[in-house]
Amino acid sequence: MANREFDVLVIGGGPAGIITAVTSKTYYPEKSVAILRREKKVLVPCGIPYVLYTLDSPEKNIIPDDPILKKGIEIIVDSVKKVDIKEKVAFTESGDKIKFEKVVFATGSTPTEPSWLEGRDLENVFYIKKNIDYLRDLKSKLSNFKNIVIVGGGFIGAEVADELRKYGEKKITIVEKLPHILYLAFDEECCIKAEEELKKGGVDLITGVGVKKIEGKGKVEKIILENGKSIDADAVILSLGYKPNVKLAAEAGIRLGASGAIWVDEYLRTDYDHVFAVGDCVERKDFITRRISKIMLASTATSEARIAGANLFKLQVVKTFTGTIGIFSTKIGNNAFGSAGITEAMARELGFDIVIGEAESIDRHPGSLPGAHKQRVKLIASKKSEIIMGAQVFGGDSVGEIINLLGFAIQQKTTAGGLLISQIGTHPLLTSAPTTYPIIKAAESLISKI
Amino acid sequence: MANREFDVLVIGGGPAGIITAVTSKTYYPEKSVAILRREKKVLVPCGIPYVLYTLDSPEKNIIPDDPILKKGIEIIVDSVKKVDIKEKVAFTESGDKIKFEKVVFATGSTPTEPSWLEGRDLENVFYIKKNIDYLRDLKSKLSNFKNIVIVGGGFIGAEVADELRKYGEKKITIVEKLPHILYLAFDEECCIKAEEELKKGGVDLITGVGVKKIEGKGKVEKIILENGKSIDADAVILSLGYKPNVKLAAEAGIRLGASGAIWVDEYLRTDYDHVFAVGDCVERKDFITRRISKIMLASTATSEARIAGANLFKLQVVKTFTGTIGIFSTKIGNNAFGSAGITEAMARELGFDIVIGEAESIDRHPGSLPGAHKQRVKLIASKKSEIIMGAQVFGGDSVGEIINLLGFAIQQKTTAGGLLISQIGTHPLLTSAPTTYPIIKAAESLISKI
Repeated sequence: MANREFDVLVIGGGPAGIITAVTSKTYYPEKSVAILRREKKVLVPCGIPYVLYTLDSPEKNIIPDDPILKKGIEIIVDSVKKVDIKEKVAFTESGDKIKFEKVVFATGSTPTEPSWLEGRDLENVFYIKKNIDYLRDLKSKLSNFKNIVIVGGGFIGAEVADELRKYGEKKITIVEKLPHILYLAFDEECCIKAEEELKKGGVDLITGVGVKKIEGKGKVEKIILENGKSIDADAVILSLGYKPNVKLAAEAGIRLGASGAIWVDEYLRTDYDHVFAVGDCVERKDFITRRISKIMLASTATSEARIAGANLFKLQVVKTFTGTIGIFSTKIGNNAFGSAGITEAMARELGFDIVIGEAESIDRHPGSLPGAHKQRVKLIASKKSEIIMGAQVFGGDSVGEIINLLGFAIQQKTTAGGLLISQIGTHPLLTSAPTTYPIIKAAESLISKI
Repeated sequence: MANREFDVLVIGGGPAGIITAVTSKTYYPEKSVAILRREKKVLVPCGIPYVLYTLDSPEKNIIPDDPILKKGIEIIVDSVKKVDIKEKVAFTESGDKIKFEKVVFATGSTPTEPSWLEGRDLENVFYIKKNIDYLRDLKSKLSNFKNIVIVGGGFIGAEVADELRKYGEKKITIVEKLPHILYLAFDEECCIKAEEELKKGGVDLITGVGVKKIEGKGKVEKIILENGKSIDADAVILSLGYKPNVKLAAEAGIRLGASGAIWVDEYLRTDYDHVFAVGDCVERKDFITRRISKIMLASTATSEARIAGANLFKLQVVKTFTGTIGIFSTKIGNNAFGSAGITEAMARELGFDIVIGEAESIDRHPGSLPGAHKQRVKLIASKKSEIIMGAQVFGGDSVGEIINLLGFAIQQKTTAGGLLISQIGTHPLLTSAPTTYPIIKAAESLISKI
């Protein structure tokens, strides 16, 4: 049992916690900063699906501590039992008392466990947890199973399916209640493209149907769908999203938002000026819709963390986060998909008056060059202002950065006309031709409809 | 001999001409538009180096006519002898008279031929011409030569060298008068990286020395450098840049700028309201330095063409081109390089008060994923305003789009702080980790120095 004291105590060691700590050290090098985390080793969260096949083991998917330690940040492996906000002290499981001037909740999220689902306690029902021991065990078990059913076709479900099909001899099935997989991030045409890729890889897809129960004697044997059909299963992976870890903050008296996540202002402050929260545990407002956003992404978390870290002691980064914009990318088979901002379907549902622009090209020029891949850009803009509200891209690996360009354009409130006259660079071996560069052609197609 | 009449006559069939014609048809579908060009088939200009090895033949590097014809644009293969601006008529070599309401000069550029260089008329002295027959002949000749010397280490010289070294058994040498290859687009550290790649591929580099003369009896035998050394050569490729084709416009009485290229305003109009000019034949002003820019890129040309095409009959795209920003990318060996805006060296030379930010990461996360490539971002910003003026990137293939993101940010007059708080998307198989995303880390490094 020890008493310690830091200027900044960050609770949680994932990307949000790390970047808050590192940024605070950049802006306030004289302050003492500690990260208190549960895990000895921290996983790269978005890399988790790839430990199931592509990477030899979860140990290959670790965020190194070195850059953190080199910044002069202390890492404490322990668990926080209680935080006294007024006395500015945290109590740990191992009995330590840690005084702080500023505290940051970066407590993350855990997989949603469906209390309504009968059979969820059977052996061989799994989640995609952010825990290295659990994942090592999961990988070794899955490698022996033949029939694996994934419930939930969001990013994690789709990426896990694409990994597991690489074993070759397994029967992998995704069950998704919505009409399509990835349907919260993409419009139909992109979803269908991703579905085709998974099917080509041998994955079975059942969409538009929910799961009723999991059956088996002790162990999983089959899964029963809402339509009465049953699927044989040696294992079930439940990928139904993640819920924010808010218990510690709530018990400390920190205000929660309407969604149940931690309420924060634009500077990532809670209702106490010396208490910040960042990452999956906070409530976000959507950049476009101005409603609560359920997005949980490491990239979003680190953006928040940079603002929190810079503003811990002085509000210096004044041009702040003006809402969360979901910028996603993923790869299924040999195809990459990206989405930024609002989808067409969501925009129409929420009553936005919109116009769409689309263009297709090839990501090398001429298209006969080796490695060339078809690419497609869709833009969603407000009809009156022409401001870009959403974008979706399909193509080769460069999609990961094209969607960042479009995400940046959305944040800059760029109009379709602004995109149209933007100067770009192209190269035969790296991009589409200047004559067919799909962002500009999609802007042109959009404008021609107004 | 025939008399014909079009609302819009575009002289020149390269990317600038094509995009002017296509854009004008998008904005003014009722107008009749013709492209008059010399070539039966038009080459993808930036793809030209890759016809020398990677592509089977120049025929694989053709811009298809189909999309142009489908837009209702007429293609006339002929050559213009004379344009009468006042009478609004063009006279062709084959004796046709073509009346027009608006005319667009998109006459392009041709390789610079050094009048000062003794031996330049010897057999086997070549240029990288934008002509399919010439290139077919060049490829067949080069395939039989062993010692090839490339004079000029700009993009074309470097890319041609990287292509020719793929034959394996040739001795390829670049001679560059400046201290480094690619030195007008990149700062030293990127140039050195590119030089290392070429050397690894077996290319000999001689930098900081000019060429004195080419020697041989009828045919090239050797090249003599300014320092007296000689290099055996079966062939010499002179890649000393390109000069704008302005003869036709000058003879028509169109005003030329101080650099000798066609003078145009921000709407790409010449000094006659009904006469436009776009592409390599026009004089450009640099986006940052406000001086004349010598950049010649198909991407720049097509940006101009979109504005010209939209504004031919009404000035509708009012937020215009505010200067030319060079956005380059290239690939040498397995490494890609990108540059946008001003280099550090150029900024210092021109008296800008600047600050630099740099960051390195890996373009997959975790870095143990297959295909991972180191990447590096350098930002150059104005010290007082923090506005980004230039950027350079080194890495894998995604550099082609990262540099477009940075080029877009420069055009939006983004500050380092603006980049720092930008939200981005990341994916293990497509991008760097959110914690190390190099654009944001470079912005952070830049700000920490102010």
